[in-house]
Formats: sequence, structure tokens, C-alpha cells
Amino acid sequence: MKYTLSAKDLKSAARAGILHTAHGDIHTPVFMPVGTAGSVKAVHQRELEHDIQAEIILGNTYHLYLRPGIDLLEKAGGLHKFNGWKKPILTDSGGYQVYSLSENRKIHDEGVTFKSHIDGSKHVFTPESVMDIQRSIGADIIMAFDECTPYPCEYSYAKKSLKITHQWLERCVNRINTTEPRFGHEQALFPIVQGSVYKDLREQSAEFIASQNQHGNAIGGLSVGEPHDMMYEMTDVVCKILPADKPRYLMGVGTPENILECIALGIDMFDCVMPTRNARNGMLFTTQGIVNIRNEKWKDDLSPLDETLGGYASTFYSKAYLQHLIISKEILGAQIASIHNLTFYRWLVKEARRQILSGTFAAWKNAMVKIVSARL
Amino acid sequence: MKYTLSAKDLKSAARAGILHTAHGDIHTPVFMPVGTAGSVKAVHQRELEHDIQAEIILGNTYHLYLRPGIDLLEKAGGLHKFNGWKKPILTDSGGYQVYSLSENRKIHDEGVTFKSHIDGSKHVFTPESVMDIQRSIGADIIMAFDECTPYPCEYSYAKKSLKITHQWLERCVNRINTTEPRFGHEQALFPIVQGSVYKDLREQSAEFIASQNQHGNAIGGLSVGEPHDMMYEMTDVVCKILPADKPRYLMGVGTPENILECIALGIDMFDCVMPTRNARNGMLFTTQGIVNIRNEKWKDDLSPLDETLGGYASTFYSKAYLQHLIISKEILGAQIASIHNLTFYRWLVKEARRQILSGTFAAWKNAMVKIVSARL
Repeated sequence: MKYTLSAKDLKSAARAGILHTAHGDIHTPVFMPVGTAGSVKAVHQRELEHDIQAEIILGNTYHLYLRPGIDLLEKAGGLHKFNGWKKPILTDSGGYQVYSLSENRKIHDEGVTFKSHIDGSKHVFTPESVMDIQRSIGADIIMAFDECTPYPCEYSYAKKSLKITHQWLERCVNRINTTEPRFGHEQALFPIVQGSVYKDLREQSAEFIASQNQHGNAIGGLSVGEPHDMMYEMTDVVCKILPADKPRYLMGVGTPENILECIALGIDMFDCVMPTRNARNGMLFTTQGIVNIRNEKWKDDLSPLDETLGGYASTFYSKAYLQHLIISKEILGAQIASIHNLTFYRWLVKEARRQILSGTFAAWKNAMVKIVSARL
Repeated sequence: MKYTLSAKDLKSAARAGILHTAHGDIHTPVFMPVGTAGSVKAVHQRELEHDIQAEIILGNTYHLYLRPGIDLLEKAGGLHKFNGWKKPILTDSGGYQVYSLSENRKIHDEGVTFKSHIDGSKHVFTPESVMDIQRSIGADIIMAFDECTPYPCEYSYAKKSLKITHQWLERCVNRINTTEPRFGHEQALFPIVQGSVYKDLREQSAEFIASQNQHGNAIGGLSVGEPHDMMYEMTDVVCKILPADKPRYLMGVGTPENILECIALGIDMFDCVMPTRNARNGMLFTTQGIVNIRNEKWKDDLSPLDETLGGYASTFYSKAYLQHLIISKEILGAQIASIHNLTFYRWLVKEARRQILSGTFAAWKNAMVKIVSARL
């Protein structure tokens, strides 16, 4: 898996690049729609490809492992064959979901024991098993099995947790190095920097992660409730250490504003459920600002959702019609808003890339942050 | 609104025709997808047009009147402009929904007083107001305001109800004759035959409805719980009386088998929530028979939903993937199954039409009824 750095912004740490994978090129900065259970919610695969023009989507190892299960994914020839998505897939390690189970999981040196949220059945994830599972899913990018610390988090816990995360990383690397890709295409491991909101831990972790010399590097444990300034500070600290010739992935981030600010800090890859989850609740991200479509003010606004953005969902349907659908709990409302928001996120990072390539990113970013975070 | 009779089957009462409307031609027999609140559930308008190739959809007056409301529909320029559907729209009269409110409605000579299921607010529908509402929705085909009797229904009640339905029809006809189309296109009234399961009442009603000499005629009050044989008997009785040079619409019917049998009795138009509602529960109608996708037997069946049927949803997605989505309550499951089922219904009536035109309908129908009603 090769990463080509195409351009660097002079007034910020923003970069434009291309990540070459067996399932196609990914132009960075990139936003990756989240397909938790093998489906980006309310969006057809052809809509992802043609309307949203996504270059990579996410799958969640925890969900896919429980349902449909690894046997079926193996039989299908991997998730690509199972759901028909032909471009790259990144899978998380399942760690984040498992830790969210709080009552129903136990962390030990070997790994994590947890109970399924579906049927209460007991399972164990280890660094080794999670590498094997992601190989069986057929992920192009495999995430290391880490512990994602919550916020707030005591320094002592963060330090202890980081030690385990690093130990587990070595086991992940070893497992990846001693196993073969499951379906013939390259499967690259991305290690994950942790360290909560502690600068020294983040630095220490970034150094360690960089030393693993994998194909890309990720930052986890942010966007878990800490103030935005703290998230930016930690991202900045880590980006300065992570190698410039590898893509940097900030996990679970975020709002359009977060994404623009973190591109400026040197992040290349993002994922977040926000555009789809908020879509289902009627929150639209547009080129003019944020629209709560349930608001009375859109009741008889027959103008398209976002003419500037373009595309089917955003120009064919009106605000008044979408409000009617969302209030009436019509499934089509979720479908329209999801395509719209993902198209907007795609536009945002694509435009950021264009600005980086033309050397105008920093000024554009400062102006755009105000626009995309304004409530209309 | 002109109806051209293209062919008549020699071995049954089946007919093929074309209903010419201001928003395009409708080739009959036709199945009309139901768009209750201005959206065919889980289906984009472009999917209705390009994948399902629907020639007409339904809207429900009761739902549209309550939400988004007639003021907004008027402002938009009618439902066509509001939801972007450019082909014909038929609206029911709201009667069926209002009667379903049982506790919350009262029938009197003037009309029906009812309480909204949304906010409990009180409303009155009269034959006149319902004609005006359907004009404001911009329906190409307006249904008469009738009383849809339940099953079972005492003879005495059915007879009394029929009298009111006929009185109301005269008021509907009078209102339509003394008002103008709201948006410049023709809006044709279809009266509705009632009479429960009583042959003499059905005959009497069919005679009366035929005497109104409108552009098409409908049969209501069937498919409300009575045995299929009774439904076929009543349909047969009525079809023999309704004029052959006008389209005949059997309301709320039904299964693929019901549709084939009623085409054979002389019905031209159908509507039913079954293909979309059952889709959301995982029931698929296919060219090979009925599939309950939740069944264990489809768990690892990686074959397409229905290769013979063709089309995106039915050939791109596998049975195993759809089972996974439906069981996981993923919205995409409802989307895929809805497009598939509507595509199947469209194929069924289109194929019936082809068989009528080529003089082979009766034998094809007898064979096809067995196939489409088999449980796989």
C-alpha cells in the first residue's frame, strides 16, 4: 500500500495525497462513510458510488463478527463480495464497541472478554483474533486492537492503558506479519496512537507507533467528549511526530469544523457516524451552514436542500418536502438526508484537497469554518 | 381522460388498454404503488421511475390533508410539484382511513366527523370538501367519497350504507362538475361500487355507478377480510355490469394471485400496500414464488434475490445479505425489498398485459398463479 504525497500547504500542516490500494486509489484528505453492519445506513451501494462518490467505507469488526458472522463472510469471499462494495474497506478493531459495553466486558492482559449486545453470548477478542477477523472480513486497512480510553481519564489509568495498547500492538504486528491476506489483496495494518489528553503520553505513543513503520497511522481516543481545543492540541502534538510519508487517520472525527481544523493540523483520513446519524434526526450539513429541517422556518420552504452542493438528493428534493418526511417518520426522509450529508462531507474534503493543491487552503479553511458551523 | 381498449382475451374477461392522462399514458392492467403520505415508503422518486417504472402512484387524502396539509400542497402547486413525481397520481377519498379510526369518527348524512390520529384535532370530511381537497392535491384521478363497509357486515347495514354512498356520489359528481381543475390538468372522478358481499347490492350499485358515466369506475369494500372466493364472485358480478369502454379499478387488492385472478375477471387497475409493507417485514414476491427472507434456509444463500426478474435491487443484492440487513433492522433492507417487490408487481402486470395482447393470457395465468403463490 503506497501513499503519494501530492502537495503540502505552506501556511498550515495540511497535505494532499493519494493512498493506492488493491481496490483503488483514495484521494486524501478523505472522509470515510461508516457502514457499521456492512451497510451505510439508508444508502444503496450504487448511491455511495455514484452520488456520494465515496472512495472508501468503514465496517465495524464487532458488529460484523456478531452478525452476519465470520463464517458467512468467509464463504462470501469477504465483505466486498457480501455487500457488493468494490472499493476499499477499512475495519476498526472492535475495541471501541467492546469498551462501550462497560458492564458487559472485562479487560485482561490477554485481551477482552465481552457479552454480545444481541443475545448475551460470551466472546473473547485478543489482538491475534481481531487481526484474523479483519483478514476474514477482507479489509484493505486493518486497525490495531487497542484500548480506547474514555474522557475524562485519570493520568495513571491512561498510562497503564497505553502500556497495554502498545503491548497489544506488538502482538497485532506479529500476527499480521505471520499470516497471509485472506482473499489475495493487500491488507495493511494501521497502529493507533492513544494517551488520552496527556501530551507526554501522546508523544510517547506517537513515537512508539511511528517506530512500527506500518503503512499508515491512526489517532484514537479523541472526540470522546473532551473540549475541541484539547482534541486539536493532542492532534497537533501527534501529527508533528507521525511520519509525513504515511497517511494519518483521526478516528471518529467529526463535525465539518473539526475536519477542516484537523486537516490543517496534518490529518488525511476521517470517519464519523455524524453525517448519517444526524441525517436521520433531520440535521443537515450544507454549503450555507447547518439546517435543522424540523424547524418551523423550513415548513413551506420549497427550495432545494442545497443547490450549490448539487447532486440528486440535494437538488431534487425541497426543504419543505424533507421536513414533511422526517416529521412523518417516512424512511425516505432518512434516505434523502443521509445521501445529502455524505455528499456534503465528500464535497468538503474534496474542496479542501483542491485548495491545498492550489496553495489557498489556509485562508479558505478559516472562511469555511465559519460558514459550515453557522446555524441557519 | 381517454381509455383505449387494445385487446380482449378470448378465454377470460381480461383486457389490455391504455389510459391517457395529462401526466402520461398508463398501460393496463396496471399496479399502482401506494405513496400514503406523498412517498412510496423506502423508495426514491427516481427509483420509482427508472427501476420500478411505475406509470402511476397513489396518495392518501386523509394523510396528506393532515400532513403536510392542503395549504402547503396548494403553495407547492400540488403533490406532483411537492414530491417531484411527474407521472399520474390517484388519490383515495380518505373514507377508508377515516372509517378505520372506529372510536374516533362519526358518520352522519352530511359527511364524517373524525379526530386526527396525529394530534386528536377534530375534522369534518364531506363529499364536497373531499373533492376540493383532491383537486388541491392535484390528483389526476379523484376517488368518490364513499363508505367502505367492513367484513363481516349485516345485510341491513350494507344496504343502508350503500344508500348513503350513492347519495354522496351524486354530491361528488355535482361538486366536480361545478369546480375547475386546480392546476390546469384534467382531474377525473372515479365512482366506487360498494355493497359488501351481497350480490344484489353489488349489482344495484354497479348499475348506479355505471349510470354516472364517469371516466373510470372502481370497486371498493373488498379485500377487507372476506374469503378470496367471495371477493372474486363480487368482482365478477360487478365487472359484468361496469362498462367495457372505461377502466375498472379494484381498490386495495392484493396478492399476486389475487391480481392475476381479478385481471381475468376484467379488472384493469390495482393498488395495495402489500408489496411495500411485506417488504419491510422481509417477505419477497419473486418469479419463483414467495420468499420469507428471515427463514434460516436463506442464511448463506449468496445468490441474487431474483435473477429472472432482473433490475438493480433484485440482481445486485443476495438473499444472504438481505437477510442480514432485515434481521439487523438496517434501513437498506427495507429499501432493497421494497424496490424488489414493486419491480415484481410491475413485471407481473406487464407480463399479464403482454399475454393478453398475444392471446395467451388464460393458460399463462393458470400456470403463473401456482408459481407466484408457492412458498419457497
